Amino acid sequence: MMMPPLPTSPSPKTAPYTVAVLGATGLVGQLIMHLLEQRQFPIKELRPLASARSVGKTVRFGGQHIPVQLACPQAFEGVDLVLASAGGSVSAELLPHAITAGAVAIDNTSHFRMHPNAPLVVAGVNDEALEAHRGLIANPNCSTAQLMPVLQALHQAAGLQRVVVSTYQSVSGAGIEALGALLDESVHNLAHDRPNAAALKPSTFEQTRFARSMAFNLIPQIDQFEEKEGLEQGYTKEELKLIHETRKILNLPELAITATAVRVPVLVGHSESVTVDLKSPLSVAQATTCLAQAPHVVVATTPEGYFTPRETANTDPVYVSRLRQDTSNPATGLNFWVVADNLRIGAALNTVRLAESLSQRGLIYPATTPFEC
Amino acid sequence: MMMPPLPTSPSPKTAPYTVAVLGATGLVGQLIMHLLEQRQFPIKELRPLASARSVGKTVRFGGQHIPVQLACPQAFEGVDLVLASAGGSVSAELLPHAITAGAVAIDNTSHFRMHPNAPLVVAGVNDEALEAHRGLIANPNCSTAQLMPVLQALHQAAGLQRVVVSTYQSVSGAGIEALGALLDESVHNLAHDRPNAAALKPSTFEQTRFARSMAFNLIPQIDQFEEKEGLEQGYTKEELKLIHETRKILNLPELAITATAVRVPVLVGHSESVTVDLKSPLSVAQATTCLAQAPHVVVATTPEGYFTPRETANTDPVYVSRLRQDTSNPATGLNFWVVADNLRIGAALNTVRLAESLSQRGLIYPATTPFEC
Repeated sequence: MMMPPLPTSPSPKTAPYTVAVLGATGLVGQLIMHLLEQRQFPIKELRPLASARSVGKTVRFGGQHIPVQLACPQAFEGVDLVLASAGGSVSAELLPHAITAGAVAIDNTSHFRMHPNAPLVVAGVNDEALEAHRGLIANPNCSTAQLMPVLQALHQAAGLQRVVVSTYQSVSGAGIEALGALLDESVHNLAHDRPNAAALKPSTFEQTRFARSMAFNLIPQIDQFEEKEGLEQGYTKEELKLIHETRKILNLPELAITATAVRVPVLVGHSESVTVDLKSPLSVAQATTCLAQAPHVVVATTPEGYFTPRETANTDPVYVSRLRQDTSNPATGLNFWVVADNLRIGAALNTVRLAESLSQRGLIYPATTPFEC
Repeated sequence: MMMPPLPTSPSPKTAPYTVAVLGATGLVGQLIMHLLEQRQFPIKELRPLASARSVGKTVRFGGQHIPVQLACPQAFEGVDLVLASAGGSVSAELLPHAITAGAVAIDNTSHFRMHPNAPLVVAGVNDEALEAHRGLIANPNCSTAQLMPVLQALHQAAGLQRVVVSTYQSVSGAGIEALGALLDESVHNLAHDRPNAAALKPSTFEQTRFARSMAFNLIPQIDQFEEKEGLEQGYTKEELKLIHETRKILNLPELAITATAVRVPVLVGHSESVTVDLKSPLSVAQATTCLAQAPHVVVATTPEGYFTPRETANTDPVYVSRLRQDTSNPATGLNFWVVADNLRIGAALNTVRLAESLSQRGLIYPATTPFEC
C-alpha cells in the first residue's frame, strides 16, 4: 500500500535576513530599527518602507543612512521578514502581498489580531503559538501585552477567575503627533492658563487632535465606541481589544474580564490598576515569588518600592508593584499596579523578540498554507 | 408615679451666625468663604483663622478685607459654627476647644471621621446622621464624597454586593503648594526635557514635594502606607479612607469594597473608574434613570458624552459617564466613570451644604452630650 507523501516540511531561511520595516518613520518603526541594531538581529538588508510623504527621507541603521522606500506591493520582493506598524489599513492592504512574496510578517496593528489564522503572541508567554503561523503573526495591543506575563503567571499559580482592569495610558500610544500635541498643549496652557489655574478659574480649551483637551486632563476614551447593541455596547475598541486579546493569548476564551481605558497626560509608559479573583488562594508573598519568576517581569518587594511610568520609560521590563490582598475579596483576590513602556513591550520590543523567536525556532519560511485574509 | 423629666431639647441658635473658618488661607478654606458668600449663608461675623504665618494677611468677604486671626483655643469665643480645613493635627488640637465653647464644628480633615461620635455626612446622601451630632460633624475624604450619591442610588435600586474603585486624583487634593509644584515642574520639564521627550530619552527628574516626579507622571501613592500585618497591609491611608468611610456613610459596615488611589497630573477634579456587582440585575437604562434622580448627580446619556476633570472643574455636580454592563459580570455588574471637583463636593461645597443643612434642621446648638475625643 502506498502512503501519501508527507507534507514537505518547510525549509527555514537562514540568517542573516532581509528585513522590511513598514512604517519606518513612526514612533514604533523607529524604535524597532533601534532595537534590531542594539540586539544585533542578523540582517543582511534593512528595507525601511513608508508612505509617499516620507520617501526621500533616510533612516540611520548600522552606521548608514538608508533611504526610505515607498510602501507598495512590489516592495517585498526578496524580503524574509516584515515588521509592520503603519496602521491597520496599510497592513490590511500590503501584508497579503508580503506573504505571497514569501515573507513572514509580524504585524503591530489590530487588523489581523483576532483572525483565527493569525497567532497572537507575547514573547515569553505563548511563543509556541508561532509554530502554526501561515505567514502572519500579530503583535497584541500595548495595554494587553504588558499584562500577559503577569496574568499568565497568576493563572498558572492559582487559576484566573475574573480580571478587572483600569488603564492609565500614555499619549505615545496615539503616535508621534499626539506626543507633540500634548507638549504643545501643555506649553500653551502653562503660558495662558497659569494665572487662571492658580485662581482655580476654568481655562479655555484648545481643541487638539485628541477628543478633548489632553494637557492636565484625562480622556476616558481610546479608539471608537462599540455601537452594536449587546454586552459590549458602550465599550471602546481599546477596551475590547484588551478583553478579547487577553482571552486569545492566554487561551481562556471564557475568561471573565473587563476593562476601562483612559488616556492620561504621560509621554511614555502605560499603567494599569488590576484586580484579579483567583480560583484558589494565593498570598501576597506567594504571588510575589511567582511573578518574580515570570518572563520580563520585575516585582517590587515593598509598598514604597512602587514603579511609575516616567521612571521606567525606555526600559524593557514589565513592572509590578502595589501587590496586596483585595479587601473586597480577601479569600482569593489580589490588587496590583502594572507599568511598562508601551512602545517597547507593547510594540517594538515584542516585535523584535518575536522575530528572534521565529529565527531561533526555524520558523522564518514562506507559508505553506496561505493565510486567508 | 412621677415621670423623670424629659431631657431638655437644645434650643437652636438662630441665623445669622458667627462663623469661623479654620485654615482660611488654604485652597479649601478660600473656596469655603467664596461659597458661603455666593450661596448667601446667613453670617453676622466671619472669623478667618490660620497659623501664625498667615496672621497679618486679610481675606476678602462680603466686600470687606477681614484680617486673619491666629488659630488658638481662645479664638472660638462666641462662635456658632467652625468650618475646619487646616489639617488633622490642627483639628485634633483646636476643635475640642471650639465645641467646649459651644460651637458646632464641621471638620474637613480625616482626624475624627471614623470616631463613633462623629457623624460622617455627604449632604443629600445621609443628612439624617446630622441629628445625632455632639458638636462635631466630619466631612468625608474627597475621593469618597463624590462616590456616595452614586453608590447610594445604585444600592437603593439593586443592592451593592461589591465595589472596586481605581482613582485618578488631581494634585489640588494635596493642597495649594502641590498645585504650584506641578506647574513649576511642568514648566521645568518642558523647558529642559522637551528635546529628550521628543527623542524618547529618559529625562532628569526634579525631586519635588511629591514622592516622585509628578509632571507627566503618575504616582500610585496618596498618603502613607498601612504597615500593620493583615488584610489592609500595603494599602495607602487614602485607599483605606475610601473603603472605611464608604461603609460608614452608607451604613453598610460589611460592604465588600476595594480601592487603588493614584495621583495624576491634573490640577483640579478627581476621577474614578468604578466596577460594581449588584445584588439584582440593573440595566444600563435603569441605572441611568436612577442616577439621574440622585442628588447632585449628572449622568451622560451617550458614550461620547463622557466627562473629563478639566472640563467640569469649578462646577458643583458629580458627573457619571461611561456607564455600561460589566463584561466580567454580565448578570449584575456595571462599570462607570465618576468625575467631580474635589475641592467642591469633596471638600468646601459639602462643608457649606452641611452648614446649610444644620441651619435648616435647627441643629446649630452647643452639644448637650460632649463629644469625647
